[in-house]
Amino acid sequence: MESQTAIGSWVRRDDGGVKVRGRARYTGDIAIPDLLHVRLVLSPYAHAKITRIDTSAARAMPGVVAVLTAGDLPLVEPEGLTRSRDPLARDRVFFEGQPVVAVVAESEAIAMDAVTEVLVDYDEIEPAVDPMTTLGDDRERVHDSEALGIREDAGAHTTAHGHTEALPRPANATSAQRYKRGDIEQGFAEADSIVEREYVTSWVYQAYLEPQSSMAVPDGAGNLTVYSSTQGSFSTRNEVASGLGIPPQRVKLVAAEVGGAFGAKYALLDPLVAAIAWKLDRPARLVYTRSEDFLASTPAPGTVLQVKTGATKDGRLTALQAKVVVDTGAFPGETAGIVSLLLGGTYRFPNLQIDAYEVLTNKPGAGAYRAPGAPQACFAIEGQIEEMARELGLDPMEFRLKNVTEEGDLMPDGPPWPRVGSRAVLETLRDHAAWQKRGENGPGEGVGIALGGWPAGTQPASATCRLNPDGSFSFTVGSVDIAGTNVGMALLGAQTLGVSPDKIEIVEADTDSAPFAGASGGSKITYTVGSAIIKAAEDAKRQIFALAAEMLEAAEQDLELAGGEVRVKGVPGRGIGLDRIASASTAFGGGYAPILGDGRDAHADSAPGFVAHLARVRVDEDTGLVTVLDYVAVQDVGKIINPAGIQGQVYGGVTQGIGWALMEGLYYDDSGHLRTGSFVDYAMPSALEVPGIESILVEVPSPDGPFGARGVGEPPVVAGAAAIANAVYDATGVRPTQLPIMAEKLVEEFQSRRQAGRGERSAH
Amino acid sequence: MESQTAIGSWVRRDDGGVKVRGRARYTGDIAIPDLLHVRLVLSPYAHAKITRIDTSAARAMPGVVAVLTAGDLPLVEPEGLTRSRDPLARDRVFFEGQPVVAVVAESEAIAMDAVTEVLVDYDEIEPAVDPMTTLGDDRERVHDSEALGIREDAGAHTTAHGHTEALPRPANATSAQRYKRGDIEQGFAEADSIVEREYVTSWVYQAYLEPQSSMAVPDGAGNLTVYSSTQGSFSTRNEVASGLGIPPQRVKLVAAEVGGAFGAKYALLDPLVAAIAWKLDRPARLVYTRSEDFLASTPAPGTVLQVKTGATKDGRLTALQAKVVVDTGAFPGETAGIVSLLLGGTYRFPNLQIDAYEVLTNKPGAGAYRAPGAPQACFAIEGQIEEMARELGLDPMEFRLKNVTEEGDLMPDGPPWPRVGSRAVLETLRDHAAWQKRGENGPGEGVGIALGGWPAGTQPASATCRLNPDGSFSFTVGSVDIAGTNVGMALLGAQTLGVSPDKIEIVEADTDSAPFAGASGGSKITYTVGSAIIKAAEDAKRQIFALAAEMLEAAEQDLELAGGEVRVKGVPGRGIGLDRIASASTAFGGGYAPILGDGRDAHADSAPGFVAHLARVRVDEDTGLVTVLDYVAVQDVGKIINPAGIQGQVYGGVTQGIGWALMEGLYYDDSGHLRTGSFVDYAMPSALEVPGIESILVEVPSPDGPFGARGVGEPPVVAGAAAIANAVYDATGVRPTQLPIMAEKLVEEFQSRRQAGRGERSAH
Repeated sequence: MESQTAIGSWVRRDDGGVKVRGRARYTGDIAIPDLLHVRLVLSPYAHAKITRIDTSAARAMPGVVAVLTAGDLPLVEPEGLTRSRDPLARDRVFFEGQPVVAVVAESEAIAMDAVTEVLVDYDEIEPAVDPMTTLGDDRERVHDSEALGIREDAGAHTTAHGHTEALPRPANATSAQRYKRGDIEQGFAEADSIVEREYVTSWVYQAYLEPQSSMAVPDGAGNLTVYSSTQGSFSTRNEVASGLGIPPQRVKLVAAEVGGAFGAKYALLDPLVAAIAWKLDRPARLVYTRSEDFLASTPAPGTVLQVKTGATKDGRLTALQAKVVVDTGAFPGETAGIVSLLLGGTYRFPNLQIDAYEVLTNKPGAGAYRAPGAPQACFAIEGQIEEMARELGLDPMEFRLKNVTEEGDLMPDGPPWPRVGSRAVLETLRDHAAWQKRGENGPGEGVGIALGGWPAGTQPASATCRLNPDGSFSFTVGSVDIAGTNVGMALLGAQTLGVSPDKIEIVEADTDSAPFAGASGGSKITYTVGSAIIKAAEDAKRQIFALAAEMLEAAEQDLELAGGEVRVKGVPGRGIGLDRIASASTAFGGGYAPILGDGRDAHADSAPGFVAHLARVRVDEDTGLVTVLDYVAVQDVGKIINPAGIQGQVYGGVTQGIGWALMEGLYYDDSGHLRTGSFVDYAMPSALEVPGIESILVEVPSPDGPFGARGVGEPPVVAGAAAIANAVYDATGVRPTQLPIMAEKLVEEFQSRRQAGRGERSAH
Repeated sequence: MESQTAIGSWVRRDDGGVKVRGRARYTGDIAIPDLLHVRLVLSPYAHAKITRIDTSAARAMPGVVAVLTAGDLPLVEPEGLTRSRDPLARDRVFFEGQPVVAVVAESEAIAMDAVTEVLVDYDEIEPAVDPMTTLGDDRERVHDSEALGIREDAGAHTTAHGHTEALPRPANATSAQRYKRGDIEQGFAEADSIVEREYVTSWVYQAYLEPQSSMAVPDGAGNLTVYSSTQGSFSTRNEVASGLGIPPQRVKLVAAEVGGAFGAKYALLDPLVAAIAWKLDRPARLVYTRSEDFLASTPAPGTVLQVKTGATKDGRLTALQAKVVVDTGAFPGETAGIVSLLLGGTYRFPNLQIDAYEVLTNKPGAGAYRAPGAPQACFAIEGQIEEMARELGLDPMEFRLKNVTEEGDLMPDGPPWPRVGSRAVLETLRDHAAWQKRGENGPGEGVGIALGGWPAGTQPASATCRLNPDGSFSFTVGSVDIAGTNVGMALLGAQTLGVSPDKIEIVEADTDSAPFAGASGGSKITYTVGSAIIKAAEDAKRQIFALAAEMLEAAEQDLELAGGEVRVKGVPGRGIGLDRIASASTAFGGGYAPILGDGRDAHADSAPGFVAHLARVRVDEDTGLVTVLDYVAVQDVGKIINPAGIQGQVYGGVTQGIGWALMEGLYYDDSGHLRTGSFVDYAMPSALEVPGIESILVEVPSPDGPFGARGVGEPPVVAGAAAIANAVYDATGVRPTQLPIMAEKLVEEFQSRRQAGRGERSAH
């Protein structure tokens, strides 16, 4: 029966062909008459006072329509500085590349020329670059608290869970929070092995193919249509509307084709572009150049994680103490919390204390990048686990299995984990040949493993299901498909309705008409919108049965839907096609109401996703070159909806993990200048650096997920850097504590080890 | 309370400003990259064989992309000739202006130039122009039956109602149907007055401001987006999809701004433009010139109505015998049925026989024009009623009131009228001062009245209702607002939800995502989609109460929705704002499902609309000029939803009625050439010809309508020509039997009457 086969079908994304053949129309490709082009004057300094802006020469250029500074934008002033709502610098610039002036012209070329005619005078100010130095400084170095809208009493009370408390906020921190459980003194006292390390990770660029872009088109009647490369239609609409101070329904957000996002595409440029279009009452567009995108988007923050852990010789964890410092750049961020939860929540630490800080520096504001904070946390905790296992002479897999958190174990902020597949992925990897043969390495080779978890998000979602004239169904959703989720949702709809997947279409509508859905982040779209799809399908099915019962003069409970028709069970030939039901419920003069199901869903819990990764590497002792030879990625997906889509996520995530591990980093020098601001300088994995990847999927059903499914987008990137670092450790005995792992640092380490004649354990 | 005030509010259409300021973007204004422009080679003959088409010179012109004839179009051949599915002539042309060749070029100018380089040789064939002559001809003059897909046995059985029977189909008729009741011989035998007349009405052009237009954009992946000036999104989508032979979901129909339609905008050009875009895999657009629109669109058909009626001297109707001949042009039409129903169904004729024919001639295929067939039928039957009243010396109003059909009276095809306001509108007009003072006319002045009915349509409809972040609501519909219906639907939503109308937005979505609704024709949008709106609002309200009950810890039945919040009845201050409910049901991590109501509706009956019009005219005996001095339009609207919208319909309909009566006509000469094919030759009422119009609305609730409302779009045009003709009759004693009433014909009549010294009663 068709209904048994939809879920689990291998279905390719249907946007692939369009994209590969260059026919996808991104925001920058949409033709709009009378379009104005925006280009930006960027700050050359990471920190400076603006003493003068002279736009007269630019304004005088033919074809230049406007040259705008912050005060010219019709944006409602937010309570504190925010990245998207303060798109142009006011009197100071806070990071290199910060937009200062927007030039608006009839053509891109004129706008680019005019940018060079804008004169801005700056008085440089010493920038804050190193987060640890800045955290320790008691003067406010980047902003004053007032400018940020931070009230000193804001975090002075503990949160609802009762397991966190606000720490005194250092001058340059935007948040300071302590996660606490048990008694760490006691815990370390019980420990037979204590490992203490500082892990440092770089800023990382999301490196999507399509740069940030937005276009806004006013209709002359007080409404604005915004076309945006965005992950979230509704959130971006709301951001624009509240920026302009108008009701949300006055803004129609059309989610354009997204050429990669990975967490970075959340209304960065939209308020700016909308404000320009609104002010000038003409359509306006800004598409970042790649250089602007490197300088002035929202990369993943650098982190410094000082971690101390203890365990007994029989392999029981006793305590974790950590200081989490997230370099949030010039705007407040939200990464320190997730880092802390995963650092202290992946394994059972009866005693823990994590002090987490977000620290301001003169860098672009940090954003989300696929499982934000998780690769950094995983790198640190998996390094600790690995090193303690080695110190205690324990099997690292068994050590993990003994301590891994499972359903009911508490997270550092208090609530218990729901049902998770952490143990299942570890056990699957344990039984895999690649782990069983871990001892059979050649010279310079090593095997590393890591467990990575992602708490995942949840958000209410809704969808509608409509029967079409040909007996097919259309589901309308408000989510944006940035990762092939629509294919999976079509399978969920097909499964529920008992029709072939090619009879299902998922339609992404704009914010004027779409059923609400959250942004495509947090690996929650299949989990939340997918559940709404199923409910909408069930609703439509009920309506179809009621109509068919009347037409067939049969009882509803005697009907079944299969093969594109509703038929009376056990009575061959007594059926009615879905196309006829569609016709009867839409025909002129017809007496049956149209089939239109709606599905509304809200999950109380999220559905965390766990992975266990294994990397086998070879390290060249002379050059420090790390080559990833084999890779096994085990992931709990709850239920396999579309294996093609999941495997795509796994391959992509592993590839990005290799980038985290060995290549990618945005380096800011002491002046706050970005030294790797182009694809010439910023290294990323190519096909040459990516080994064959074996992807193994495990199904530990999520209680609330559609057919048990969990989100699968973010988990694949979490464990890569940690597994590769552990493999390097296994191969060389050198413990990498910095990401990316730099060949020159490894070589230095090898050399000093040879000179010292002993096995140093830290790469720096 | 707000909920009491929404319905009946005077609300202006919000698209007015945009249109008046020239910022509405019609299909021709939408910018699309890479757009191809289509121009047509039209037949200069009304009937001819195509002997040769030479496109070589046109093809050779730079910028010309394709020059296409019928065989080049990738359209699935329909079962018989159809207007939209045979957009280019094959081997013969059947009307002047019929498109023969489509030239496709990179610019409009190139396409226009290339059109002149296409050589088409024709052998002229004698055209069939006069419908009566053609009906009497036993040779097939325009098409053969096979080409039309007419099977001779098609109508050989009576319809379900049992009151119609198929007549033998004459060679040039596409349909021949008899409506029969009682015994007409007997009926006429009982009559004291028998009046027999032939009424002739011209072809009439809908004269919308924006010509027919369509644009199709392929996406390179097998899907097509069509932007169209159309009254019906779904019907046009289906027409395009079936033309191309692809599933309907592959076509996305975006209903563009419509610059007037009046019944003429139903997928005329869309299959042609879609086929061109599909074949060339590039966007293509065709916007008719005004001249093309006059020649080759779908005007209202001319009719010849031979009517004989009888009545007793005490004012009882006894019999109606009629021959209804509708000149359907070169393609089959559907007007004869409505003409017959209204001719025989407005008053109670115990005995009737109506033979109704659609006759082919060499003119463009007839289409719908606001209440298609009704002005013609009304003109005839109201002329008969008026003349019989005069012959019998009866008060024409009382004579009407005595015989008017009401709820339960049978229509000529059998079924009874549902509840209608026919008597109510007559009585209202009877009591009006304009009627009471009808004797107080100056020289050459007269007063005429007419009762007009419109059966109206029904079709299943659906809608959704979404709660927005600011506590406002968005309703998504699949209907097209060609007449301000969205304002009325907003009022229905506001009334149901108890919020202010400015908190309601009606969103027209494209066919990919919209809930199904029928085309905006038949005066059924408020009646059907409006009912779905109410149900969607009720569903949303239930969801809101359920959520609020949980948040407020109160029982649902204790809650009320007013003032933008849900509150516990009788407990001031215990309430929760709709904005907070929106937030709770959409927030990240939130535990309440989004508010999304759906409404699905199907009415078994339609809600006919009746009008009674009174015109006071002055006729200049020397020039024949008829001036409309005063006008009273009484209309039963069931329930007044938006008086502003209704009054707009009344003013527009009355104005068009004056056009029908006195000015408008497409005249085809003996060769089938259109002699009034421009706004220079085709007269229409301007503000100078339109008197003050008094609009009086009567409310006879429709049992199924939203709050009792009926459709109001078409009825206002029905009675105008009849009332004015009756006023001319009253003023002059001359009975107009042809539309438009021609001044020169009246003068001829006056002259011949003066010469004969007696009062002739027919204008020709």
